Amino acid sequence: MNLVLFRPAELGHDGELTLADDRARHLLDVLRVVPGSEVRVGQLDGGVGTATVLAAEAGRVTLRCRLGDPPPRPRVDLLLALPRPKVLRRLWAQLAALGVGRVMLTNAERVERNYFDTHLLTPAVYEPLLIEGLQQARDTWLPRVSVHRQFRPLIEDELATLAPGTVRLVAEPGTPVKVSAALGGAAADARVLLAIGPEGGWNTFELARLDAHGFTRIGMQARTLRSDTACVALLTLVHDALGA
Amino acid sequence: MNLVLFRPAELGHDGELTLADDRARHLLDVLRVVPGSEVRVGQLDGGVGTATVLAAEAGRVTLRCRLGDPPPRPRVDLLLALPRPKVLRRLWAQLAALGVGRVMLTNAERVERNYFDTHLLTPAVYEPLLIEGLQQARDTWLPRVSVHRQFRPLIEDELATLAPGTVRLVAEPGTPVKVSAALGGAAADARVLLAIGPEGGWNTFELARLDAHGFTRIGMQARTLRSDTACVALLTLVHDALGA
Repeated sequence: MNLVLFRPAELGHDGELTLADDRARHLLDVLRVVPGSEVRVGQLDGGVGTATVLAAEAGRVTLRCRLGDPPPRPRVDLLLALPRPKVLRRLWAQLAALGVGRVMLTNAERVERNYFDTHLLTPAVYEPLLIEGLQQARDTWLPRVSVHRQFRPLIEDELATLAPGTVRLVAEPGTPVKVSAALGGAAADARVLLAIGPEGGWNTFELARLDAHGFTRIGMQARTLRSDTACVALLTLVHDALGA
Repeated sequence: MNLVLFRPAELGHDGELTLADDRARHLLDVLRVVPGSEVRVGQLDGGVGTATVLAAEAGRVTLRCRLGDPPPRPRVDLLLALPRPKVLRRLWAQLAALGVGRVMLTNAERVERNYFDTHLLTPAVYEPLLIEGLQQARDTWLPRVSVHRQFRPLIEDELATLAPGTVRLVAEPGTPVKVSAALGGAAADARVLLAIGPEGGWNTFELARLDAHGFTRIGMQARTLRSDTACVALLTLVHDALGA
């Protein structure tokens, strides 16, 4: 934990924050804070700053927080064919750590229907994993998550609202265009919407819908990667190309 | 499993291969092969090709293999401060899938000593995980793994033999030089040795030794990533810069 994140409602009007959960245990047992210690703190969807430990005892830590500006918002949104639960579990924290503004999880022909039944699509389950990733990366912007059981209305109608004004890329193995080339002409403040298909790939219909709605195909090296590895790799390339 | 990998000793002189383990179960239960089916096969450290199913029954599959050339050897070697076991477990398959020629796991000040006690450093444990990654990525080159409990002799003496003729990079958060810039002048067939430190970073002594032995510092975006995410991200950037 490189940053202690808290929700706005947890903060007293005087900047005091009292923790008595996992965060307090981490501060006490791992960072071994004592009164006077300084720690990095951040408010969810808000600023980052420093806090001074006022009291630390018996599983309870009280801090006085001084917050500065929020970090820059991640400039990448992700449209991801819902991966199998085991892969999704591994992904949540990594997505937040790499930085995504929004994650749209979608159906596709090669997504198995029962993947939608997983408890990993419940905010109470995925939010702590996202927060774990933010605390690792010292970010405060909680990715917005939406789940879409129908691919076509998402692409044809909803994307315009969910991810307006984005440069759209779709990863398709074997495409000779690199991410950096596809984003070479993008504006300095461009936002990117990156689409990543299921492990078996998008089908012909899905690719045609994405083509028709402005997604440029990009590729990586020739290797076939597991969904979670592919997500980390592609998000890295987009962030690198954006200079973020 | 996108490629069925086998060891040279498993192959009969007539190109026949009989499987009765997890690979057979995958062929029977997932790919649902029958006599006459074709599947992709590869020989560990050797060629890839196609095999025709000769018989498939009762947990046992017999194939006739026709092998072509091996895939290109990965052009990246990894010098990695030994991560904690939970992270290492997640990494093995992903390293093999992304492609590394050699993995040197080293001690560093911020590596906890008990990390070396994990059974994940036993070939019998990590080889199946590496092979899982190769089968995912359709590669045959099993990464060479070595474990180094002493950092200094590794850097000063052993690296010259273990990773000769490589362009050496070390990831150091906050460095403004991107991977692509550091490799901009590298030869078209360059090999790269990428050093990634522990989650707390290399210490001053370690960085000085790496500097003195030809490692160029490179950075990524400003975020602090977990070791496994950082490995996937940095290997992706190196492969991308090499055009692999």
